[in-house]
Amino acid sequence: MPHVAYVNGRYRPVAEASVSVDDRAFTFGDGVYDVCEVRGGALIDETRHLARLRRSLEAVRISWPIGEAALRLVMRETVRRNRVRDGLVYIQISRGAARRDHGFPSSDVKPGLVVAARALDPAIGSARAAEGVAVITLPDQRWAHPHIKTLQLLPNVLAKQAAREAGAFEAWFVDRDGYITEGASTNAWIVTSDAALVTRQADASILHGVARARLLDVARLLGLRFEERPFTPQEAGQAREAFLSSATTIATPVVSIDGKPIGQGRPGGIVAELRRAFHLSAERS
Amino acid sequence: MPHVAYVNGRYRPVAEASVSVDDRAFTFGDGVYDVCEVRGGALIDETRHLARLRRSLEAVRISWPIGEAALRLVMRETVRRNRVRDGLVYIQISRGAARRDHGFPSSDVKPGLVVAARALDPAIGSARAAEGVAVITLPDQRWAHPHIKTLQLLPNVLAKQAAREAGAFEAWFVDRDGYITEGASTNAWIVTSDAALVTRQADASILHGVARARLLDVARLLGLRFEERPFTPQEAGQAREAFLSSATTIATPVVSIDGKPIGQGRPGGIVAELRRAFHLSAERS
Repeated sequence: MPHVAYVNGRYRPVAEASVSVDDRAFTFGDGVYDVCEVRGGALIDETRHLARLRRSLEAVRISWPIGEAALRLVMRETVRRNRVRDGLVYIQISRGAARRDHGFPSSDVKPGLVVAARALDPAIGSARAAEGVAVITLPDQRWAHPHIKTLQLLPNVLAKQAAREAGAFEAWFVDRDGYITEGASTNAWIVTSDAALVTRQADASILHGVARARLLDVARLLGLRFEERPFTPQEAGQAREAFLSSATTIATPVVSIDGKPIGQGRPGGIVAELRRAFHLSAERS
Repeated sequence: MPHVAYVNGRYRPVAEASVSVDDRAFTFGDGVYDVCEVRGGALIDETRHLARLRRSLEAVRISWPIGEAALRLVMRETVRRNRVRDGLVYIQISRGAARRDHGFPSSDVKPGLVVAARALDPAIGSARAAEGVAVITLPDQRWAHPHIKTLQLLPNVLAKQAAREAGAFEAWFVDRDGYITEGASTNAWIVTSDAALVTRQADASILHGVARARLLDVARLLGLRFEERPFTPQEAGQAREAFLSSATTIATPVVSIDGKPIGQGRPGGIVAELRRAFHLSAERS
């Protein structure tokens, strides 16, 4: 069965799905996106993902290509056509296709919309969580607004590749002041020696992860203490546990940072608890 | 006559020219580009543009989609098919189309190549230079490598739009230390009271403009003094002249910055001299 993507009003086999060479996502990275987990056929925390998509669009002044209710239908239909039970749905919106010119195009240029869906084997994520992953640290060289989920992702691409070449799963960015911001495609967490969760406050330097927000909800439900504040690689190195989060990794243990083991060098108990409880708390559409 | 673009091996009418929704330029801004002036049918400073393109590709580790000699032919053929005598040729190279994943795709994924050409009426540039343009200043919020000519252009898009909405032609970025780096799509220059040209040194915070380098050559030929160093908006406000440069604007006078007139509030004599001499110095292919 061919994969199918929704592209500007039509469902197309992905192999034939295309956009104009004048699409501003292609020429300027002028667009935003979001990724929503699909689990057992349901969209997880869809409302939060769409609220974030709305904030992203407003921040860069791109209008909705179709109404939000219509987008929800397209997301479901794309999931259905790709027969995704467990995986993700990807939504990308660009400022539209227009002759290349940095300033915004005229208001009759319609935003571009692509929706895709892909199955992911839950066993792979579970195995990764059972084993834990390695992380490296790199300077945060991104633009000033990583909290907007835009296509300005080349620094993330280069960091993820550097991680892979170092045998790691993720790169954690370190800002000019020496604090970890987040990973190339995940948020960053540690657990202190007295069992408090620590993750950076949701300022402009990190993506306001939907999984991150959900994990804070889970922590509340479980009665775990948490602190939203900056932390350094040094503090992380001495942490009891560390982990990363995103719509596709949920909470995945980090067992080493820059080659140094975290805690016992094995996945910790608190992240395991958070991971187990995640989908009990998360909202299914 | 329809505009024609070269896209991954074929010349296509621009209205039908398309790329995969999985092209990494579209999903990650994972690509580089260059823009070369066409004048009287000749490519201006083509060798310098291709040398910069090579540096951009190397910096982000994208390989050449076709050989450099072949690319030169494609550039010429694209100019010819679009019957461009005066205008520009645009070259964009992406890391290729592959299922979305931040890390680099496997080595069998071929980089994507788009070449387009467009006529520009030289009278428009001349009129703009005769009148001079307004500039506003904005915080430089770009990533750490504006010297690489990548598609990480959303901050440039937002800045150019802010300039337009303020009735200005360009926005000059100001770094954290209070110095002007460059414009959203042009390099920034001033002329001091004792007639020295000043433009920021070619560090990682600015694009190493080909027109910028050519203007330094012209300054040498004309016996003008120049200093490659940072300057502040305050120094610019007291400058005798100011101007901006790029492959399409050459040297265009700036007559106001943030609403305050520069010099007499009219285009200056030194920038006019540089503009006149530019194409005498520039290399025509």
